[in-house]
Amino acid sequence: MNDRPAPDRPVRLTRWEQRTEVPLFAAGLLFLTGYAFRVLTSHEAEPWNDIALILVWSTWLLFLVDYVTRLRLSGLGARFLRVHWLDTLVLLLPLLRPLRMVQVYQAVQRRHDRPRLDLYARVMAYASLTAVLLGFSAALAVYHLEHTAPGASIRTFGDAVWWACATLTTVGYGDATPVTLWGRTVAAGLMACGLALLGAVTGSFSSWLIQVFTREDEKRPPERG
Amino acid sequence: MNDRPAPDRPVRLTRWEQRTEVPLFAAGLLFLTGYAFRVLTSHEAEPWNDIALILVWSTWLLFLVDYVTRLRLSGLGARFLRVHWLDTLVLLLPLLRPLRMVQVYQAVQRRHDRPRLDLYARVMAYASLTAVLLGFSAALAVYHLEHTAPGASIRTFGDAVWWACATLTTVGYGDATPVTLWGRTVAAGLMACGLALLGAVTGSFSSWLIQVFTREDEKRPPERG
Amino acid sequence: MNDRPAPDRPVRLTRWEQRTEVPLFAAGLLFLTGYAFRVLTSHEAEPWNDIALILVWSTWLLFLVDYVTRLRLSGLGARFLRVHWLDTLVLLLPLLRPLRMVQVYQAVQRRHDRPRLDLYARVMAYASLTAVLLGFSAALAVYHLEHTAPGASIRTFGDAVWWACATLTTVGYGDATPVTLWGRTVAAGLMACGLALLGAVTGSFSSWLIQVFTREDEKRPPERG
Amino acid sequence: MNDRPAPDRPVRLTRWEQRTEVPLFAAGLLFLTGYAFRVLTSHEAEPWNDIALILVWSTWLLFLVDYVTRLRLSGLGARFLRVHWLDTLVLLLPLLRPLRMVQVYQAVQRRHDRPRLDLYARVMAYASLTAVLLGFSAALAVYHLEHTAPGASIRTFGDAVWWACATLTTVGYGDATPVTLWGRTVAAGLMACGLALLGAVTGSFSSWLIQVFTREDEKRPPERG
Repeated sequence: MNDRPAPDRPVRLTRWEQRTEVPLFAAGLLFLTGYAFRVLTSHEAEPWNDIALILVWSTWLLFLVDYVTRLRLSGLGARFLRVHWLDTLVLLLPLLRPLRMVQVYQAVQRRHDRPRLDLYARVMAYASLTAVLLGFSAALAVYHLEHTAPGASIRTFGDAVWWACATLTTVGYGDATPVTLWGRTVAAGLMACGLALLGAVTGSFSSWLIQVFTREDEKRPPERG
Repeated sequence: MNDRPAPDRPVRLTRWEQRTEVPLFAAGLLFLTGYAFRVLTSHEAEPWNDIALILVWSTWLLFLVDYVTRLRLSGLGARFLRVHWLDTLVLLLPLLRPLRMVQVYQAVQRRHDRPRLDLYARVMAYASLTAVLLGFSAALAVYHLEHTAPGASIRTFGDAVWWACATLTTVGYGDATPVTLWGRTVAAGLMACGLALLGAVTGSFSSWLIQVFTREDEKRPPERG
Repeated sequence: MNDRPAPDRPVRLTRWEQRTEVPLFAAGLLFLTGYAFRVLTSHEAEPWNDIALILVWSTWLLFLVDYVTRLRLSGLGARFLRVHWLDTLVLLLPLLRPLRMVQVYQAVQRRHDRPRLDLYARVMAYASLTAVLLGFSAALAVYHLEHTAPGASIRTFGDAVWWACATLTTVGYGDATPVTLWGRTVAAGLMACGLALLGAVTGSFSSWLIQVFTREDEKRPPERG
Repeated sequence: MNDRPAPDRPVRLTRWEQRTEVPLFAAGLLFLTGYAFRVLTSHEAEPWNDIALILVWSTWLLFLVDYVTRLRLSGLGARFLRVHWLDTLVLLLPLLRPLRMVQVYQAVQRRHDRPRLDLYARVMAYASLTAVLLGFSAALAVYHLEHTAPGASIRTFGDAVWWACATLTTVGYGDATPVTLWGRTVAAGLMACGLALLGAVTGSFSSWLIQVFTREDEKRPPERG
């Protein structure tokens, strides 16, 4: 989000970011896997559960190391927190990691060096992937917070995913809704992020469709000459 | 969706597609009719039911023949599955056939050679027709999956159509919602496709309205000269 | 909707339309008033009720006269039904009259000859007025069809208006929803029309806001020169 | 909203507005605080409650003074009510004050004279801040009107905030909905304003994302030369 080409940006920071982008994304997926495992399996005693816990904390440690390194390389000092507020937020709430996906996507594209997708297709791909990952994270978090609450309508992880779908698309049936304070806070965050992302998907699709139809017009020979 | 003018595309493939487009669309409608008959009539014994079953399978066979022919003509081999992933998906889930309607629409237009609609009007026409067909297919599938489920709120086909309307427009009253896993999967697919299509309708209508008002401005003589 | 400047359009038809536009709109409002009176007052015996009935039928007769006159003046014969399908629909369902409001709006503007509103403001004004009128008509029709149905959740006209608000904005709480076949048909129509109109309002507002902010930029002296 | 550069606008009015903008916004926040205090604390006897009441009325008096001063300075007389209808509405319903925030935002920017945000970022910032403030005001008002109503589903202020979130984003679960006439009127107002504002957020985000991806394209060296 905040990687506009700043003229005075240290070269070493840029290089660091390019190199760590994909490993960090992989770490983010590991974090999500570990968290999902912790949330979805209820028994505490198994060894797998401890492994998942270690996974969650060690990947988070990686994020912390990356954050501190970038803070130092940037040479911004305390201003880093304000300028890179999204990164700070993502450090504290690692479930929001998908929001950084635009950089990962570009890094992957840069390496493979293959013909890139159409502009609108890329916006759609980015926005829908981010929306799916955010929705999944939100479903996990809401399931975690809600499934033991009294009077909850989200009782299984399937319910939570169904709720996330209905919320992201703003359909909002209301057959499964969070009832706790924190569940509703997560839901409000999902609504805000999701709406913007889905708006981007819709807008790009609309622009893309109009482009396809315009091109079709140009390709055709004039009909009545 | 994926018929961008590829420079090295075999001429025979293009010709095949142009010739089969409309018959295949007709076959798609037959498939839908047969499926609707199977779903909406509950008695198994009648001869009509067997005819519908035969219709469903024979049209699907047609789709398979078309798919294999195009796979061979394209000369892509196994890559065809990845490049034409939408076609592969449509082969496996024939209820998604309406998504290919943009090609049919253009094929029909090409033949009749009459003055074409305005750009925005065409986008609107395409997107709303596709949305209606997808909504109808989804209503059929959801009714099929839900009407015998315990605790279902979609009990009649009317309910299913009403649910599809409320879902496609993202109103989402919640008085009729799927409760089974597969019903909800279909619903999530409808939300995703429907949202994009409806966004295209809305966006085109908005652009069209602005265009109409702009034209109106130009037509009028200057008022205060 | 369908008044594009056709080169071979009879002058007399254009003149007729310009002259009748505003009276017909007034007649449309009278029709709505009469219909609202019939629907909202339950007692049959009063003289006012008969007056309302006469009002409804006499205004509808006016619409019929206008339609037939335009059919004759156009010189299109039976093709008129297809070319002016929206007018035909509006004749059969006079509650859809608001859809023709764009012409009325332009006719009024033409007469008063005062400085016109900004393009986006006009689109917003047209779309929101049409949405309000359509919503009101739909609320009347749904109240008419629903309030005596068994198990209805729309029991008062207030409920119907509340339902129309929630439907037009796609919020869809679901606390008041139609349950009868015809009520749901009207609802589906409202969703389709409303969505497009609201999309136009939203799109224009967004464009207008961006325009305001852009202008603000240009007005300001350069900051750091 | 209505500060288009009118050629014949009195200089003194412009100066007055520039000077009072920020104090009035502070007064607006004080008004909101006082109103929130009155609404959220139920006991009448405490001294704080009286202070809140005084705060509400004294800030409203400030608004009245500002309105009358501007009415006089404008030299428009009674026409002021019609030209500045939004200001008149905001005077009568001070909870709508956030709608004037675009001016405050610009006034603050003008003073600090720092590099301004990107156009789309500014539209997003303005629209989302306004939406948040309007949502908060609406939640307060609805809580005030609903929490004692028989059969209400909005019983705590938390419910009201949750309802406002679901309404602004058009999700509309329906687990908490207003049931009284005035609560529903406030809700309808929130839907109308919120929809337009959220549309602006979505639209700007979409445009901004497309811009980011376009820039990325330009920055890259050509791939296949």
